[in-house]
Amino acid sequence: GVNPDLANERQTASFSVEKLTAWLDGGAEQTRLRRAVVEAIERDPVFSRENQYFQSQNERYEAAVRKAVHLQKKMHEMGWSQDGPESKYIYRAVAGDIAFLLHRIFMRSISVLGSDEQIAKWIPPASQYQLIGSYAQTELGHGTYLQGLETTAVFDVTTQEFILNTPKISAMKWWPGDMGRSATHTVVFAQLYVHGKCYGIHPFIVQIRSLQDHSLCPGIIAGDIGPKMNFEHIDNGYLMLQNVRVPRENMLNKFCEVQPDGTYVRRGSQKINYFTMTSVRISLISGEAVTPLMKACTIAIRYSAVRRQSKLKPGEQEAKILDYQTQQEKLLPQLAAAYAFHFIDDYLQEMFDRGYREIQRKNFDTLPELHALSSGFKATVTQYCTSGVEICLRACGGHGYSLLSGLPSLYTKIIASCIYEGENTILLLQTARFLVKSFMAASTGQSVPPSVTYLAAVKPRKCPAKNKLDFLSPDIYTEAYQHMAVRLISSTAAKLQDLIQSGVKKHDAWNRCTVQLAQAAKAHCHYITVKNFAETVEKLESKAGIQKIMKHLCDLFALHGIFSNAGVFMHDGYISGAQMDMVTASYLDLLAIVRKDAVPLVDAFDFTDKSLNSALGCYDGQVYQRLYEWARKSPTNKQISPAYEKYLKPLLHNTLSKL
Amino acid sequence: GVNPDLANERQTASFSVEKLTAWLDGGAEQTRLRRAVVEAIERDPVFSRENQYFQSQNERYEAAVRKAVHLQKKMHEMGWSQDGPESKYIYRAVAGDIAFLLHRIFMRSISVLGSDEQIAKWIPPASQYQLIGSYAQTELGHGTYLQGLETTAVFDVTTQEFILNTPKISAMKWWPGDMGRSATHTVVFAQLYVHGKCYGIHPFIVQIRSLQDHSLCPGIIAGDIGPKMNFEHIDNGYLMLQNVRVPRENMLNKFCEVQPDGTYVRRGSQKINYFTMTSVRISLISGEAVTPLMKACTIAIRYSAVRRQSKLKPGEQEAKILDYQTQQEKLLPQLAAAYAFHFIDDYLQEMFDRGYREIQRKNFDTLPELHALSSGFKATVTQYCTSGVEICLRACGGHGYSLLSGLPSLYTKIIASCIYEGENTILLLQTARFLVKSFMAASTGQSVPPSVTYLAAVKPRKCPAKNKLDFLSPDIYTEAYQHMAVRLISSTAAKLQDLIQSGVKKHDAWNRCTVQLAQAAKAHCHYITVKNFAETVEKLESKAGIQKIMKHLCDLFALHGIFSNAGVFMHDGYISGAQMDMVTASYLDLLAIVRKDAVPLVDAFDFTDKSLNSALGCYDGQVYQRLYEWARKSPTNKQISPAYEKYLKPLLHNTLSKL
Repeated sequence: GVNPDLANERQTASFSVEKLTAWLDGGAEQTRLRRAVVEAIERDPVFSRENQYFQSQNERYEAAVRKAVHLQKKMHEMGWSQDGPESKYIYRAVAGDIAFLLHRIFMRSISVLGSDEQIAKWIPPASQYQLIGSYAQTELGHGTYLQGLETTAVFDVTTQEFILNTPKISAMKWWPGDMGRSATHTVVFAQLYVHGKCYGIHPFIVQIRSLQDHSLCPGIIAGDIGPKMNFEHIDNGYLMLQNVRVPRENMLNKFCEVQPDGTYVRRGSQKINYFTMTSVRISLISGEAVTPLMKACTIAIRYSAVRRQSKLKPGEQEAKILDYQTQQEKLLPQLAAAYAFHFIDDYLQEMFDRGYREIQRKNFDTLPELHALSSGFKATVTQYCTSGVEICLRACGGHGYSLLSGLPSLYTKIIASCIYEGENTILLLQTARFLVKSFMAASTGQSVPPSVTYLAAVKPRKCPAKNKLDFLSPDIYTEAYQHMAVRLISSTAAKLQDLIQSGVKKHDAWNRCTVQLAQAAKAHCHYITVKNFAETVEKLESKAGIQKIMKHLCDLFALHGIFSNAGVFMHDGYISGAQMDMVTASYLDLLAIVRKDAVPLVDAFDFTDKSLNSALGCYDGQVYQRLYEWARKSPTNKQISPAYEKYLKPLLHNTLSKL
Repeated sequence: GVNPDLANERQTASFSVEKLTAWLDGGAEQTRLRRAVVEAIERDPVFSRENQYFQSQNERYEAAVRKAVHLQKKMHEMGWSQDGPESKYIYRAVAGDIAFLLHRIFMRSISVLGSDEQIAKWIPPASQYQLIGSYAQTELGHGTYLQGLETTAVFDVTTQEFILNTPKISAMKWWPGDMGRSATHTVVFAQLYVHGKCYGIHPFIVQIRSLQDHSLCPGIIAGDIGPKMNFEHIDNGYLMLQNVRVPRENMLNKFCEVQPDGTYVRRGSQKINYFTMTSVRISLISGEAVTPLMKACTIAIRYSAVRRQSKLKPGEQEAKILDYQTQQEKLLPQLAAAYAFHFIDDYLQEMFDRGYREIQRKNFDTLPELHALSSGFKATVTQYCTSGVEICLRACGGHGYSLLSGLPSLYTKIIASCIYEGENTILLLQTARFLVKSFMAASTGQSVPPSVTYLAAVKPRKCPAKNKLDFLSPDIYTEAYQHMAVRLISSTAAKLQDLIQSGVKKHDAWNRCTVQLAQAAKAHCHYITVKNFAETVEKLESKAGIQKIMKHLCDLFALHGIFSNAGVFMHDGYISGAQMDMVTASYLDLLAIVRKDAVPLVDAFDFTDKSLNSALGCYDGQVYQRLYEWARKSPTNKQISPAYEKYLKPLLHNTLSKL
């Protein structure tokens, strides 16, 4: 049965959980489809994650390969296609614990960078898994800065081959997933040399393992890079190339080609590559950042409604920890953020789809804005969600620290999202570059993309709020965020100009502004998030039951941001000290209001117990029973440790001196 | 040889690293002693941590027991005693990876809570390891709130025994270290019942495993609680008691006793218990919080001086990432904090020693202050250092995420320090209670303990700084911190009073102020840290070479705090927006200055390569070579995964349909 402490929380919900779930999914039909996929996957024992927290890196890898192979069968069985409506729910259902994700990137890179002949040659066998691909870009000594890659590909006119080499250890390919133990092929990025001249980075298809017996091909040194903070299921690998020869046709040549005589030809626009990066960054926001935060909130909030500690009122029983203001202040802003970023994901998807349609018409005008927004939001959302998951973990005290809570693995995985697909600080600075440019354009009256037109607007110098209730007005707080973003962008742009005008070299001036530029980029994304949340709530007018609680969450998200970043709002006096006290008062009031619906709000995310894989977070709230049952299954209890016979027994029997 | 990029950094040091090390150690003689201990431990292969990142939980446990047993032999061999001057360096040298730490707590609790007879009976065999002890306080459903513990001990007059029981699952003892697989005995905290009356929580010595064959004693269910985020080497355990009988003499009875007829007698002051908690909290600050942050800084800063990425100036080679302002802004404030908290540890130790001398004279007056400071600093230092280690990890990009960097294990371990020995939020609120009380006393002219006399002082309402250089004056920034702390404490105390006067019940009013109370407690500790750092620098006048760089670090720590918490300094206009710009300018200038000495400043912490156990952080900076060598040793490369024969081969040979 359900723990009464949790059942009570559900009886007093101010809205229909089922309706909210359907709305979050984009309609009841989507909810039905999602549940059907999840059910089909979870019913199948091959996809079980029951022993995950007890497995070694080798066992995790083996399970991930088993699941990936079995998934092909399953999809066939269920009639799901790779591009079907089910596909976006499959990854959620397997909780990411699956191999061959880089195989997909391998195929996509051929589709985007390859000629029609290359696509025709490689895609069919790859789709059939007659080969397994990977994507070898990053090197041991080189990440973000692609031009710095050191792997070489020298064209040999006599044999019509490229000769690939890893000239030194820092040039080893390092990190590519699926490469350490699975892949037979990979796309290698290398500096192209023809007749002694360097033409920069190009992609080459290289076979690394035998299709017959999986042994390494001649000239190939490859293996697994070893233990990581998480991702034990992925065989991130290393690769060293020693005079490895591939035919001329293996250079992906949609955009450039080396002709038989060594003539180098470039063709078409490569802008589409930017679009690919943009698409990857947007696509990871939901699955790799927002979903883990939603899971962490579900676990921590359900647990906090069940865990009792100390007395809030003398004479009563111990209080639910969710009733403490400090616990509310830890968890509820994270819950509000999970909703805020779910809506930002919708916003970015829509913008992306619009951009995609334009690009198909060969109109690349939206690309700079899309690139800036996807970079900035990838950075701000992964950063926010990572710290949110950490807060949830710590808010569960000792039990949160047990792997069985599910929280440590959520954390150790999500933190990687701050690093991969563009390190966050570097991405923020890309956004900042776009903002500074837009600000300059706007202030000289030029037209700018829609998301930054606000930079040109003249606004009141003081926040008009007169009491704490005024701060529950979306106009008031959205204006405050806008004002703050404009101020940070304009003042940093001014500092940059001043430095340059005072004679500092451009690159040096830029470096000396980067701390503030990154802050300005975050402010921009924070503003857009608040504005988009408020607009989403407004559009909900037909769903009054949901609108009310969403309005509370929107207010909470916005005021938490002002409360936590008070300095940037007060800097020029836009918000006064007295007004900041009003913000604080409204913010703390909201905690008590949202607390009442906290459990229904996480129930609406609709995670199954299996997908949470948490002894603390299950729907029934039987926390202690489950912790005990799961702990007993641990390998640490499966056998008597050899430590007893070897060390403890001699010690206890006082034979220490003979050791 | 040393990587030239790292060698260069050392040639330009503005001070003598060896002199700074000696000063940090408290004199050259201490440095010599520490190095001798570290050398003796590291030379011994039993203490090697070479394979640590590849080991399973079972292997880690076995190694920790082996090390603990071997350490006894080693100490005997080396002539080190348990209380000798070497002992504080031993734990640092084994890097915490050792069993039987709870055995020490077992012995200490008997020494503190037991009668002379009990001490005489239990301490000698415990010292000889004829039994292994643990300490069973926390329960599955109960942590901080001791009165809520549910384990019962009922006195049976007829047999003169206590009957111990775990009445329900939430009452299971849960988490005690050394208990899951090692301990033969434990101190169990249980509600004492005599003749049906409950006398509250008392400690009982209970044998849980046979001294002959280590089997569980009758009525005992015990085991290991399974995988955790770290601490795999410790067998944290669970314990269920079913009608377990222990003789009357097993209740630790220095402060209270049940006489043969069931009469309950209480004697002496229990204030000393508070002192024990205080001592534990202070003692963990250095080893469990500051040392890991120092290690993380060492790893991240050395790596940042070796790692090159992108170009800072066109035409030059790729730049060291330490030359980017954003990287400096991540790492250098953490370095300054490591120094700041090293000095706070000295401050607390000195205060503790003074308090201890008073208590030996039966003067308990210093206890409330000591308790408040130890709670507040345990919370603020562990919190700060945890987030500092996370920043260092992320600042190393992908390679920081590899376990081989050493950073993930530092992080997953230090985060636990925010939870154990008092959850941080609860501790901050204990400090806040003391601050509010002291503020009330001070404002009515009563005398208050030395660390809070500042609450009574009347101060100027505006910061007098006129330019950015003024903010390099310790008087200016220390005053600002003081002003800010007074404001937060006084305004929260006022809010609390207002609520109570408006008719809100006391406990409810307290709960509604707790977010702000916790903030006020942090502000108090932050102020003391800055003040103590400034005073430490001032006392250095005889060591000019060191004083200069310490002054820079002190300024950096202080200004980083103002920059990052701008709102609380600007709230009442004490610091204006224009002044905040000066703070920012000085802060950013300092980053460039401290950057020059960053490597020598971490070298001065004097960690050996073995103690860092990091492929990124070694003294020679040969990062890539070492990452590759270590990765090759990973068990993921030791054998061909069974996944090939089972799943990959059938897939690649196109037998998918037959699977």
